[in-house]
Amino acid sequence: MNTVCVDASRPYEVKIGRGLLATIGAEAAQITDGQVLVVSDENVAPLYLSQVVENLRKSGLTVSSVSVPAGESSKSVEYYVNLLNLLAAKRLTRSDAVIALGGGVVGDLAGFAAATYLRGIPVIQIPTTLLAMVDSSVGGKTAIDLPAGKNLVGAFHQPSLVLCDPDALSTLPQDVFRDGCAEVVKTAVLFDRDLFDHLREYGMDFDREAVIARCVAHKRDVVCRDEFDTGERQLLNLGHTVGHAIEKCSNFAVSHGRAVAVGTAIMARAFSEDADAIVSVLREFGLPTETEFSPEELAHAALADKKRSGDTLALVVPERVGRASIKRIPVGELLTVIKAGF
Amino acid sequence: MNTVCVDASRPYEVKIGRGLLATIGAEAAQITDGQVLVVSDENVAPLYLSQVVENLRKSGLTVSSVSVPAGESSKSVEYYVNLLNLLAAKRLTRSDAVIALGGGVVGDLAGFAAATYLRGIPVIQIPTTLLAMVDSSVGGKTAIDLPAGKNLVGAFHQPSLVLCDPDALSTLPQDVFRDGCAEVVKTAVLFDRDLFDHLREYGMDFDREAVIARCVAHKRDVVCRDEFDTGERQLLNLGHTVGHAIEKCSNFAVSHGRAVAVGTAIMARAFSEDADAIVSVLREFGLPTETEFSPEELAHAALADKKRSGDTLALVVPERVGRASIKRIPVGELLTVIKAGF
Repeated sequence: MNTVCVDASRPYEVKIGRGLLATIGAEAAQITDGQVLVVSDENVAPLYLSQVVENLRKSGLTVSSVSVPAGESSKSVEYYVNLLNLLAAKRLTRSDAVIALGGGVVGDLAGFAAATYLRGIPVIQIPTTLLAMVDSSVGGKTAIDLPAGKNLVGAFHQPSLVLCDPDALSTLPQDVFRDGCAEVVKTAVLFDRDLFDHLREYGMDFDREAVIARCVAHKRDVVCRDEFDTGERQLLNLGHTVGHAIEKCSNFAVSHGRAVAVGTAIMARAFSEDADAIVSVLREFGLPTETEFSPEELAHAALADKKRSGDTLALVVPERVGRASIKRIPVGELLTVIKAGF
Repeated sequence: MNTVCVDASRPYEVKIGRGLLATIGAEAAQITDGQVLVVSDENVAPLYLSQVVENLRKSGLTVSSVSVPAGESSKSVEYYVNLLNLLAAKRLTRSDAVIALGGGVVGDLAGFAAATYLRGIPVIQIPTTLLAMVDSSVGGKTAIDLPAGKNLVGAFHQPSLVLCDPDALSTLPQDVFRDGCAEVVKTAVLFDRDLFDHLREYGMDFDREAVIARCVAHKRDVVCRDEFDTGERQLLNLGHTVGHAIEKCSNFAVSHGRAVAVGTAIMARAFSEDADAIVSVLREFGLPTETEFSPEELAHAALADKKRSGDTLALVVPERVGRASIKRIPVGELLTVIKAGF
């Protein structure tokens, strides 16, 4: 088992290891001796919910659970309010806890409800997708969507514990697994040539436990230096400006991971001396590196994005594998950049 | 003018002085050079909104505004979501700001929207009631209500600036002013015999600017020692356990201030060696010190309150004027306490 300690405003551990799901009862009992609400989705619940609930009960906790439909549409105001009303109906207090069992959607939704119910109660993240393990479950960002855009509402709320069990990835549809690989490649491109070389060598057969731990450690390093996302943390948005634009243009038919893969490829071609290697690794993972939408469509969609601040835009520039920087550009220059990397 | 500096996780100033409302443009321009959304209510807007908006525009800011109905019913999920959608429609960014112009309801609602839109944008509080000036606008607590109870959802989000103009109190209905006096008396009972003596001597004619500044300074001291309300800050809940119960039993026909006055009187009679003086000052302010609801009804309503944590309850015990403590009691003992102070 790997443990990554995150020294954020409230310190916590990310534990990564096969079989960890079976330890949730003992782990949760360290955080609360009261009540837990497990939030899951309709894909994950049939696979893991009953074993998690049973395990928690065996540790003496009072457990209830709720499932939301799988997919981004559950990150809505409606599901958020339903969760809040459920927490109130079950009368959870600040010494109880929420457990998010699922992918990024469940983590964001349950995390935001936990962040705001009674102005914040503990949340334990049990990510069951690769994307959530390496990215969204670590760092304390929680969010829901508005009709006007994704992640427009949220809070910084560090989890009390993150439990990553790579065994849970065995039930993941291959497309969803590939989505997570896009964030893994992104992490390697940003911070870690060794990791990049490992991915190049092993492709989809990479060492899951070690790679997840490595990605979490990188994310931890950035998050601890910039918990509230006012500077360096924006590095993690590599490929996301264009990626979000692709998601939006496709009306979210293109998944987040695939969209980020294309965004990363475009930024690599526009800026990185390792562009060919980056594009080739993405392809090896079965990820797209091109899009049907035009640079003009993407630029237009991107500029409605919340990452626009005033009249400039923070762009993450991959210089070479293992090295990237943040460059503020006038919003008008985005189109030129996209065209350069198209 | 008095300035109280609050050294919370993000430091800010509370400025208290007559005529300060006319400085809002210059003050806001120190915080943002972009866009502001002014949130007010239908009582306050006709009195002050146009002058505030004009003043902000004169400082070169882009200004829009919205009014919600006056009263607690606006602290709902519906108005919160409307505000979020409005912020998104106006495309405010993290370098813009929300301005809350009104009493506690407006401050809580606008504050919570600002706390969560884009995971937090700046908010300037301009409290226009005595209650909001001495209590709710300082300390960063924001909240909305659920059908299950008041303030069940919220965030800690320190304002960027609080501007208290005692001139705004001249338009306040006397009942609403008295409501604020209940929190002033509460503050004196908790922390400050000199303030208590001043209130005793001058009654409703107390020195507004000085008293507001004094109350804000006391609140600042507590908030800075316990920003996230895990200990000492609970002192500020003197009279609130019973007060909330009275509000609830009356279906919120009894105002917060009057309910807290009764709650404070009950706790004083149950515990304080200065009970007679405390009750007499409350009466001098035209505030009630008794209630039509029975101890049993109050205990029942109080135990559904969020301040219950597990099986014990944190009770604020006023020992004598200027000295209070927090005592954890089993929930079952609350009825005995209420009876003792009835």
